Amino acid sequence: MLKLVSVIIMTMGISSTQAVKPWPQAGEPWPQAGEPFRLVLANVEQNIYAETLRITNRDITPECPIPWSVHKYVLHGGKQEGVEVIDVDNGKLSFRVVPTRGMSIAQVLMGDLRLGWDSPVKGLVHPKYINLHTRQGLGWLEGFNEWMVRCGLEFFGAPGTDEFIDNTGKKAKMDLTLHGKIGNTPASQVEVIVERQRPYTIRIRGRVDETCLHGPKLELWTQILTVPGSNSFQISDKITNRSALEQEFGVLYHANYGKPLMEKGARFVAPVRQVTPINEHSASGVSTYNLYRGPTPGLAEQVYCMALWADKSDNTKVMLRNAAADRAVSMAFSTKQLPFFTLWKNPVALEDGYVTGLEPGTGFSGNRAIERKFGRVPKLAPHQSRFFTIDFTLHVGKDQVEAVAHEIAQIQAGRETHVDKEPLPVK
Amino acid sequence: MLKLVSVIIMTMGISSTQAVKPWPQAGEPWPQAGEPFRLVLANVEQNIYAETLRITNRDITPECPIPWSVHKYVLHGGKQEGVEVIDVDNGKLSFRVVPTRGMSIAQVLMGDLRLGWDSPVKGLVHPKYINLHTRQGLGWLEGFNEWMVRCGLEFFGAPGTDEFIDNTGKKAKMDLTLHGKIGNTPASQVEVIVERQRPYTIRIRGRVDETCLHGPKLELWTQILTVPGSNSFQISDKITNRSALEQEFGVLYHANYGKPLMEKGARFVAPVRQVTPINEHSASGVSTYNLYRGPTPGLAEQVYCMALWADKSDNTKVMLRNAAADRAVSMAFSTKQLPFFTLWKNPVALEDGYVTGLEPGTGFSGNRAIERKFGRVPKLAPHQSRFFTIDFTLHVGKDQVEAVAHEIAQIQAGRETHVDKEPLPVK
Amino acid sequence: MLKLVSVIIMTMGISSTQAVKPWPQAGEPWPQAGEPFRLVLANVEQNIYAETLRITNRDITPECPIPWSVHKYVLHGGKQEGVEVIDVDNGKLSFRVVPTRGMSIAQVLMGDLRLGWDSPVKGLVHPKYINLHTRQGLGWLEGFNEWMVRCGLEFFGAPGTDEFIDNTGKKAKMDLTLHGKIGNTPASQVEVIVERQRPYTIRIRGRVDETCLHGPKLELWTQILTVPGSNSFQISDKITNRSALEQEFGVLYHANYGKPLMEKGARFVAPVRQVTPINEHSASGVSTYNLYRGPTPGLAEQVYCMALWADKSDNTKVMLRNAAADRAVSMAFSTKQLPFFTLWKNPVALEDGYVTGLEPGTGFSGNRAIERKFGRVPKLAPHQSRFFTIDFTLHVGKDQVEAVAHEIAQIQAGRETHVDKEPLPVK
Repeated sequence: MLKLVSVIIMTMGISSTQAVKPWPQAGEPWPQAGEPFRLVLANVEQNIYAETLRITNRDITPECPIPWSVHKYVLHGGKQEGVEVIDVDNGKLSFRVVPTRGMSIAQVLMGDLRLGWDSPVKGLVHPKYINLHTRQGLGWLEGFNEWMVRCGLEFFGAPGTDEFIDNTGKKAKMDLTLHGKIGNTPASQVEVIVERQRPYTIRIRGRVDETCLHGPKLELWTQILTVPGSNSFQISDKITNRSALEQEFGVLYHANYGKPLMEKGARFVAPVRQVTPINEHSASGVSTYNLYRGPTPGLAEQVYCMALWADKSDNTKVMLRNAAADRAVSMAFSTKQLPFFTLWKNPVALEDGYVTGLEPGTGFSGNRAIERKFGRVPKLAPHQSRFFTIDFTLHVGKDQVEAVAHEIAQIQAGRETHVDKEPLPVK
Repeated sequence: MLKLVSVIIMTMGISSTQAVKPWPQAGEPWPQAGEPFRLVLANVEQNIYAETLRITNRDITPECPIPWSVHKYVLHGGKQEGVEVIDVDNGKLSFRVVPTRGMSIAQVLMGDLRLGWDSPVKGLVHPKYINLHTRQGLGWLEGFNEWMVRCGLEFFGAPGTDEFIDNTGKKAKMDLTLHGKIGNTPASQVEVIVERQRPYTIRIRGRVDETCLHGPKLELWTQILTVPGSNSFQISDKITNRSALEQEFGVLYHANYGKPLMEKGARFVAPVRQVTPINEHSASGVSTYNLYRGPTPGLAEQVYCMALWADKSDNTKVMLRNAAADRAVSMAFSTKQLPFFTLWKNPVALEDGYVTGLEPGTGFSGNRAIERKFGRVPKLAPHQSRFFTIDFTLHVGKDQVEAVAHEIAQIQAGRETHVDKEPLPVK
Repeated sequence: MLKLVSVIIMTMGISSTQAVKPWPQAGEPWPQAGEPFRLVLANVEQNIYAETLRITNRDITPECPIPWSVHKYVLHGGKQEGVEVIDVDNGKLSFRVVPTRGMSIAQVLMGDLRLGWDSPVKGLVHPKYINLHTRQGLGWLEGFNEWMVRCGLEFFGAPGTDEFIDNTGKKAKMDLTLHGKIGNTPASQVEVIVERQRPYTIRIRGRVDETCLHGPKLELWTQILTVPGSNSFQISDKITNRSALEQEFGVLYHANYGKPLMEKGARFVAPVRQVTPINEHSASGVSTYNLYRGPTPGLAEQVYCMALWADKSDNTKVMLRNAAADRAVSMAFSTKQLPFFTLWKNPVALEDGYVTGLEPGTGFSGNRAIERKFGRVPKLAPHQSRFFTIDFTLHVGKDQVEAVAHEIAQIQAGRETHVDKEPLPVK
C-alpha cells in the first residue's frame, strides 16, 4: 500500500549516518561482528524509525552465493493494523520477527517443515487491541498465535493475586495476568546487522523495556541470528535490571508447535530427570506425557513440569518429532540458564488450536505467588544481567532425527527418569 | 491529508486481481449478485488493505441513472485517529459504516430525516482508547455514539460476574462487561460489492472475529445492502461457531434514535404481545412505555422487555415515529431469529444523550448469568451458523407513516398486549 | 520519515480556509489576540488534521527580531508510535506540548536549565499502550515521564474504590485509577495562534474531552502561552461541565523536577501556612519537608499537603531552587483557583526516578472518597466553567533567585507556618 513512501524511507534508512548504539556491554555470548552492515530500524530515544526496508544479498554481500533477504514492513487491516514484521530468509529457512509484539517470532518455514501452529486467533494482533486483564487475567490468549513468544518479565505464569510494593512503599495485592506483559510490548530499539564476510551472519536485535515508576526497570535485549544456507538459528537474550534495587524477574520461552510436527504418534524426546503433572487432570495422562494423540475436541490442556538432565557443561537438548520420525525440531540450551522446563499439551480439535508448547524457563507456569514459595522466582541485583541462549535446528529425514535422538540419549546417559504421579505441590 | 497516497491505493485496489472470498455457504437470505464489481478493502489473512477508495456510479454502473457513491477513508485526530469509515450514498439516503468499530453504522441520513442521536461522546472513538472494564464494566459507554451498534457475541447485557471455563478446563468466575466486545473489534475482512445490472444493488460486507484460545471462536459476517434511489436498506448477518465445541452466543441490535424522531410526543408503535419493565424505576413508567417525553435532566433510563406478535411467517415490524406522525423509521425482522425485543428510553437532557434504543436480540439486556437462567442464551453447535436480517425503511409524510401503522396493526390482528406491572424476574 | 507527505500536509494546513472555532465564550483570562495567525491542527468534529507543521518567525512575523518556531510532528517506534508533539521555541526557551497525552508538557529547556526529570519510562508513551487499571490501579505510572501532566478530571489521586452513579441511576462502587484519565486522553481540537504584532505572543490551545453516556461530560480547554525572547510562559485552563447536571471534578497540576533543579541541598521555597504529611512515613521527614537530599535508593516517596499564604488578591508563588541558589523555577497562581498544594518528594536513585512534584490542585492526592469526605472535591453546576492559570518563570543567577525568594517572603509577610506532626486525617 505504501510502496512509494517505502522507497523513500528505505533510501533514507540505508544512507542514515545515525550512530548505532553499540552492544550494551562486554560479555555477550555471540561472536563479534567485525565491521558489519548495520541499520537501526527503530530507536525511541533518537526517534529513528524506518517503516519499510528490503535488503538482499546482492545489496550487502554480493559475494555470498546464497540469496538471503531481510524485509521489514507493516501489516494493515483488522486487529493487525500497524503491526511491524521483519521477514528474514536465509536462503534455506525463513522466519518472521514481530517487533510490535515484543520481538516474538511468528513462524519458521523450511520447505514443508513449519515451526508454528494454527491458532483460532488469526493475524498478528496489535497490543493496542489486547487487554491483559480481560477474561479474568487471560486476555493474553486473545493475541496468542505465534510460534515463539516470551513470557515475563516482571512475572509470568497463571493469573491471580500476588503481593507487590505499591507507590507508597507498602506491600499490597496485585492481580497478575497470564504470562506477563513482555509479549505485548513493542520494541523500543530494533537493528539489523549483517556480516560482510563469511559466514555472512544475519542478526535481528531488539530492545524491549518493561519499566515504570515505583515498579520494575527490566530491559530485554534479544537477538535472533542465522547464517545463510543454514537449517538452524539462535535466540540469545540478555535481561538487565536497570534499577538501583534488587528486582524479581522471570522469562519463559513459549515455543509452540502444531502441524506438521505435532500429530497423532508424534513424540517429545528429552533427557528427562523428573516429570511432575501440574494438576490432577494432567496427572491422569502422565504415563504418556511424551506421546501425542490426535485432535480430541474438548480435552483440557495437560501440563508437565520437568527437570532435565544435562551434560557436564550444563547443556541439554530436547526434540519434538513427527509420527514418521522424519521431521523434527530440536532446542538446545543450558539448564543453568533455564533450569525449569514445561511441556504443554493442548491436543484439542484443529480449529480450536491443536498445539504443544516446549517451554524452557526460569520457573514453571504457576502463579508467581506459588513460584516464589517454591524458590522458582529469581532476582537480579542492581544493574545485573542474565543471558539466555537457545539454539533451534530443523531436522529432515530419518537419519537426522535419529542422530538427534542419539545425542539426547547420550545426555541422559542411562540416568533415571522420575515420573511423579502426584501433581506439583502448591502449598 | 493523504490524498496523493490515496490515489495510488485506489488504483491498486481496483486493479487488484486478488480473489474475493466467495460468500461462505449456500442458504444466504439475499439475492445472488451475478458478476458484480467486487473489491476487497481489507483481508487480514492476505494482508490486503486499501486505506482510501472512492467509487461512483460513473465508474461502475454508467447506465445507472442515480448518482450513487461509496467512499472509504480514515479519520484523524483525537480519539478518532485511525478509525476507518465507509460512506455509502445510494442517491436518496446515505449511511456511514465503521469497520474499525465492528461494522457499526454511525448514522443514516435522508434529507432532514436522520437515524442517529447526539451522544455526549463526540467523534467515532477508536477501540484502542476503550477499556471495556473501566467504570466497573461500563467502559463501552465511553465510545458509544453510533446509530446502530451490535452487542455480543460471547455475551452482551449488563456487566457483572458470570461463570466461564478457564484455560485449565475448570469453571471459574469472569467479569462480563457491558454489551460485550464485538462493537469495539475491527473487521478482519471488508468488501464492497456492486451489481452491474439493475437494480445495481450495493453491498458492504465485513467479517468480525471474536476468538481466542480456550475461549469462543465466533465469527460475524455482516452485510448492509441498499439499492440506488431506495429509502430502505437491509442488514443481514451470519454468526458462525468456528469451534468443534458447542458455544453460547448472543447478539443485540442496539439501534438508537434521538432527534428528529425522538421528541416529546413521539411514539413507539409495535405489535406488542407482552411488555415487562426491567426494574422498579422502569415499572413506574410502564403504562406509558410507548410514549416519549421531552428532555428531562437527570431522569434515569427506563428499559422495557418485550415479546412481539408476528405474522404467520414469523415476521414482525416496529416503528418509531415523531410527534407529528410525519417522519418515521420502521424495522422489520423475524421473531424466530430475534425473539426478544428491548425498548430503551433515556430521555435525559439533550446534552446528556437524549435517546431511545429499539433493540431486537437473542435475549434481553440482563447479565448473562440471569439470561441463561431464564433460557435466553442460545447455543451454536460446532460449525453451526445463525442468520439475522433486519429491514430498515425511512418514512416521510403522514400517509407513509399511517400505512406502516396499519401494517403493524394487521400483525397485531387484535391480539392482546399484556403489560406487566412487576419487573422482569432475576431469580 | 514522512517528509514528502509532510510538505503536502503543511501546505494544505496553512492554506486551509476552514473556519477556526472561536474561543468558546467571553470571560477568558487572557488578552484578545486581534487578527492573529491561526491554524487548526486537529478538530475531531470537522475531521481536520495536520500531521506535520513547521512555522517560524520568518513566515509569520517577519518583523519580529527573535527567531521563534513552532514545529508539530509525530513520533515513531516502540511505545511512542503515533504520539503527536508540538515543539515551541520562543528564541530563549523551548517546550514540547503533547496533544496525544492530554496536552501534557514533556519538558522545558532554557540553556542548561531544564524543567523535567529522568523517568525510568523512556519516550512519550502512547495512551493505547496504557491500561490505567493495571498494577492495581497504578497503570498511569507506566507512561509517566512528563514535566507537567494534569491529573483529573472526573477524579484524581490515589486508586481505590469510590461510589458512583451507574447507568441505571443507582449508587454503585467503582475502582478509581491513579490520577484519572485526562493525561492519557488525546486532544480533540488543537490550535496554534500567533499574534502578528508585538509582543508576537505564541499560543498553543487544545481541547480534551472526558465524556461518556451516564458519566461525566467534562471539557478541558488548555492554553500554553509564551512571548518570543521571554524566560516565562503561562498555562491557562478552562474546565467546563457540558452536562445539564451538577458534576464533581478535580484537577492537579503535576509539575515534576529532577536534575538540575532537584539535587542534594536544593530547596522548596513557599509562603506555607500549614504543612501536613500524608502518612506516617512522610511524617518522619516533615521537619525537613522543604529540603532535598541526594539520591537515596529505595526510599519510599514522601508527600506533604499544604495550605499556602497569598497576597490580598489571593495570588501566591512557590519556587524550587538548586543547591547553589543560582537556578530556579517559580510558579505563580491563585489560591482561590487552586487552594490545595501538594509537595511530592521521591528522592530515590537517579535510575529509579529521582524527582519532586510541585502540585497545585483543587484537592490533595487522597482517593476521591477521602477527598470528598473532607470537602476537597468541588462541583461544577450545569454548563459552569472554572479557570486555572499558572505562570512559570525560569530564573538564572543568584540575583534573580534571591529576588523571587524576597517576593515569596513578602507574601508570607511574617505569618506563621504551622507544621503538623500527625498525618492528614482519612476518617
